[in-house]
Amino acid sequence: MARVIVDVMPKPEILDPQGKAVAGALPRLGFTQFASVRQGKRFELEVTGEITDEVLLAARQAAAQVLSNPIIEDVVAVTIAEDDK
Amino acid sequence: MARVIVDVMPKPEILDPQGKAVAGALPRLGFTQFASVRQGKRFELEVTGEITDEVLLAARQAAAQVLSNPIIEDVVAVTIAEDDK
Repeated sequence: MARVIVDVMPKPEILDPQGKAVAGALPRLGFTQFASVRQGKRFELEVTGEITDEVLLAARQAAAQVLSNPIIEDVVAVTIAEDDK
Repeated sequence: MARVIVDVMPKPEILDPQGKAVAGALPRLGFTQFASVRQGKRFELEVTGEITDEVLLAARQAAAQVLSNPIIEDVVAVTIAEDDK
C-alpha cells in the first residue's frame, strides 16, 4: 500500500531533552563520532489508492495541523515512501 | 555540519497506540485519505568532520544498540542528510 512519510523535528532553538539524553549515552557506549543528537518523530500514513497531488496536499496540511506542534516543532519533510515511488 | 539520519519504526506486529490515536483523529478533522498511521522516531546525529564509512558503520551500530529497542522496533533507515550529500 502506498505510504506518505512525514518527518517532524523539534525546532533548533527548542531544548530537546530526549536528544540530549541520547547524546550523553553514546560516548559512554563507545560512540564518540557524534557531536549532538536531536530526536524527532516519523509518521507513516498509509493511503488507499494512488498518491495524487491532492493526497500529498492533505498530508502536508495534516502534518502542519495534527502531526506537529508548530510552536515547538518543524515539519522537515513530507515525502512518498521510496518503495512506492 | 554533516548529519546522519536514523529512522526507527515500531515493528509491524507491534500495536502502536500513538499511531492509532493519530489515525483516529485525522478523519474527525476532515482528513479521510489515510487508512492507517504508524508513529516512529527520527534521530539526527551531528558528525564533526566528514561522514566516512566508519562513521556510517558506527551510526548503524548506535541505531541498533542505543536508538532502537530491537524487541519492538525496526531501524528502517540510516542515511546521510540530503543537504550534506
